[in-house]
Amino acid sequence: MWVKPHPDFNPEKPLFVCILASTETAKIPNISAAGKSPQLTDYTPAADAELVETGNAISISEPAMTPSGAPTPAVLTRASMLLTDIPCLFINSGLRIRPKIPAIDINAQPGGDIRKGHAVVDALDIYKKSQALGKKLGKLSDFVIIGESVPGGTTTAMGVMKALGYDGKVSSSFPENPLSLKDRVVSEGMKHAGITFGSLRNDPLRAVECLGDPMMACAAGLVDGLDTKAVLAGGTQMVSVLGIIKHLDLKRDVSIATTCYVADDASANFREMTTTLGYQAFAADPGFGNSRLAGLRMYESGEVKEGVGAGGAMFLAAMMGFSQKEFREKVEEVCDCIFGAAIS
Amino acid sequence: MWVKPHPDFNPEKPLFVCILASTETAKIPNISAAGKSPQLTDYTPAADAELVETGNAISISEPAMTPSGAPTPAVLTRASMLLTDIPCLFINSGLRIRPKIPAIDINAQPGGDIRKGHAVVDALDIYKKSQALGKKLGKLSDFVIIGESVPGGTTTAMGVMKALGYDGKVSSSFPENPLSLKDRVVSEGMKHAGITFGSLRNDPLRAVECLGDPMMACAAGLVDGLDTKAVLAGGTQMVSVLGIIKHLDLKRDVSIATTCYVADDASANFREMTTTLGYQAFAADPGFGNSRLAGLRMYESGEVKEGVGAGGAMFLAAMMGFSQKEFREKVEEVCDCIFGAAIS
Repeated sequence: MWVKPHPDFNPEKPLFVCILASTETAKIPNISAAGKSPQLTDYTPAADAELVETGNAISISEPAMTPSGAPTPAVLTRASMLLTDIPCLFINSGLRIRPKIPAIDINAQPGGDIRKGHAVVDALDIYKKSQALGKKLGKLSDFVIIGESVPGGTTTAMGVMKALGYDGKVSSSFPENPLSLKDRVVSEGMKHAGITFGSLRNDPLRAVECLGDPMMACAAGLVDGLDTKAVLAGGTQMVSVLGIIKHLDLKRDVSIATTCYVADDASANFREMTTTLGYQAFAADPGFGNSRLAGLRMYESGEVKEGVGAGGAMFLAAMMGFSQKEFREKVEEVCDCIFGAAIS
Repeated sequence: MWVKPHPDFNPEKPLFVCILASTETAKIPNISAAGKSPQLTDYTPAADAELVETGNAISISEPAMTPSGAPTPAVLTRASMLLTDIPCLFINSGLRIRPKIPAIDINAQPGGDIRKGHAVVDALDIYKKSQALGKKLGKLSDFVIIGESVPGGTTTAMGVMKALGYDGKVSSSFPENPLSLKDRVVSEGMKHAGITFGSLRNDPLRAVECLGDPMMACAAGLVDGLDTKAVLAGGTQMVSVLGIIKHLDLKRDVSIATTCYVADDASANFREMTTTLGYQAFAADPGFGNSRLAGLRMYESGEVKEGVGAGGAMFLAAMMGFSQKEFREKVEEVCDCIFGAAIS
């Protein structure tokens, strides 16, 4: 199924926002596939944003695909933006490498290595700035979809969920989810921060500070400020943001949309977590099994699952009346332009 | 008179945008009063934005006022934003010092010294990025007011106007307008760029490149992309942007709004220029002669004239139904909060 429809989707001024952040956590060997090497994960968010905006990942010299040839999920987001003509704004919430396209800079520090137990030194500051930004954007838009590009982000998501008292099994950018490595990393961080499972359930921003990443503080602050319909576009990373929102006791009209690849990932527990937290969840299936491009068919085997708000962008295209086939063909067209024969 | 009304002002989603840029031109001795010293003009746009957003010019340690005690025009802009509750977005179009609040970074280089005849190396790049940003913002807002904070900006305005073939007598941030110094600076720039009066009338972006500043390329690109009602908020600097728009042959619904202090400045020719260029112009009078604050009464003697979109912000407050007295009292309240007894 393409996507379960949103019960009251009728925005006049929809807006897609994508929050970008770097983390040192992503540089732990074998933790993130979002970059050709751990050091190069710094370039990934900038390249993703550039690809969505221009069709060209300006900041990286290699093609934006996995070693086996599956393209970045940014191609799905670009396809949706082209189809729907919805404006997309990027937020720099702590980047080491700035994108070569316009982005809202909220003056955040890049995220640290959560093993040290003190990963986001400016969590409250980010939250407040983002909340103020959300207030402004909420006056311009009545429906905001919030995506992210944060290498290492599923590990920080696991950390924050544990600090809040949830056994959030997170998804991965690798086909084989390195869950035991993530578990060790999170445990080390919890030890250094002096926290235990659920001990920060009443202080979610402190959980971000210890074990999270700057995107989380930004996304939660944005939802707080918006005071309009919001959809978090992402997998288990955005589930952790829902956890933060819930534990901050924010009463907001917020739901979550992801890809079928995350929703159906047996190594993670997206559906269980969103049910437990009590938020409406949507999953969109681009039907890539029928794609003429081998690189896209690889999504079906879990080679790539989500990112750059791809699931929410698909959801948006579906809500605006585009069919699964129209969406898939637009993604193929985007891939042809960017990669040529390299993914056929 | 408070302000001449706009004939068809009825926006649903108004937006105020303020473009920030640094220039080396501002560091020519005695050319700009927008900073305690020529070197400190780098901090002025950041401090202006911070003051509008938070009431605190975080990036500077001195009070944001002239040596004789007249407050920055940013207090007028802040007063308008507080009264009207219109969202305000800042654009970093080439800053040396970034503001400590969210701003849209379009990755522009700071402006050079126009005496060298090559001041904006990336004028076309800025224009294109800003045009793309304008397309997005135009989908969210139906009425955009565009202000600026650019030290040295009246000198670059004079340069661009001469290159386009206009004898634009520009205003000044000093009570005594150093027009002959500006003339010498512009002449030196024209000589080094190998251009003469009016020789770039068919190539306005080249005029910006040689003698302008990064804000100009950004403002013109934004208006191009917006495709909705736009008002340039500023004095002779924004007149030069109108010149660029006209000479680019952009057909857009654009007008200009400034303070009575610029419109009535006998050393400049704001009204003559806007008539010559053929755009509708508005001037707003805050009635500061009746203010209880000495610092605001100084505006009446030309101590400060315009900046940070103050004129357009006033125009906006007037169009939204606030009286001159309500506006003045809000400015006084803003000043009380920021400066305490220092400007009474």
